[in-house]
Amino acid sequence: MALVHHPVVNKNGETIASAVTNLDLHDIARLARTYDLKRFFVVTPLHDQQTLVQRIVTHWTTGAGAQYNPKRCEALKLIRVVDSLADASARIFKRSQVVPRVIVTSARAAPNNVTFAHLRGVIADGKPVVLTFGTAWGVTAEFMAEADFCLEPIKFGSTYNHLSVRCAAAIALDRLLAR
Amino acid sequence: MALVHHPVVNKNGETIASAVTNLDLHDIARLARTYDLKRFFVVTPLHDQQTLVQRIVTHWTTGAGAQYNPKRCEALKLIRVVDSLADASARIFKRSQVVPRVIVTSARAAPNNVTFAHLRGVIADGKPVVLTFGTAWGVTAEFMAEADFCLEPIKFGSTYNHLSVRCAAAIALDRLLAR
Repeated sequence: MALVHHPVVNKNGETIASAVTNLDLHDIARLARTYDLKRFFVVTPLHDQQTLVQRIVTHWTTGAGAQYNPKRCEALKLIRVVDSLADASARIFKRSQVVPRVIVTSARAAPNNVTFAHLRGVIADGKPVVLTFGTAWGVTAEFMAEADFCLEPIKFGSTYNHLSVRCAAAIALDRLLAR
Repeated sequence: MALVHHPVVNKNGETIASAVTNLDLHDIARLARTYDLKRFFVVTPLHDQQTLVQRIVTHWTTGAGAQYNPKRCEALKLIRVVDSLADASARIFKRSQVVPRVIVTSARAAPNNVTFAHLRGVIADGKPVVLTFGTAWGVTAEFMAEADFCLEPIKFGSTYNHLSVRCAAAIALDRLLAR
């Protein structure tokens, strides 16, 4: 799984690098651990943000933090900070010798959306995939265009689809992986 | 839905009233709106916490906040602050003339757990229910004992079940309500 802070868009549709939210790291790392994911990549090219994430991860995975809450340690140690999604893919390739398929999630529908049911079938082959989530107002159109799969938005009866990335990630993982 | 800050237990199993987390209000209100819930009750007997919640809700549902982000307004206006779960149930009774059934969720298994599938069947009758989530280390054993239904914990292959209440609520609502 990857949480993307760049390239994403702001409220006005401009491409930005968003700030990292502490609670995203905790909530999504715990999700990643719950659903037995191999890695949780935090994607940001900003050096001060990379340092911040690394400091948070170090606090909870070593010394007093790890001792105070071993369950946090188990989750946060899945985190790797990377400059870009290409960087994450390269690391996966290095370990598995397979180029991972990139799945993009978005609250915006796309013409080439695949359903949750379809994607469950695709990932059942056990080969590497990276499931990406955008922060701020979501990943850019270019980022979506380059992905192997664009997952359909999470919808319910209502037309309201403005979930937090934490909740959207929880629902998507459960729909894709739980029996 | 109700987010319970009292009676819950701390790390040492002592009964406490936990502090309200700003992001819980936002994330869970947006979930409640997405899944067309009628109300999101924030349960706390602490007056300073009640005032804090009310101030946050007022900011986003009136004036500049509502104008800045109407989607937040739509979600946060589902929030009602109450002293206790009994208070929430009384309000539901007042509107519907039916005593709502109380469903407790917990990361701890209980002997009388019901499955998600079973509960989907129960709530399909359309009669009022309150789905409760505990903060801190979860609601007290007494609170669970008084509920009509104790929902099974969210589990996956691993034995790790330490999700944030935000993510647990997202998964539970999706499992209970999405088709």
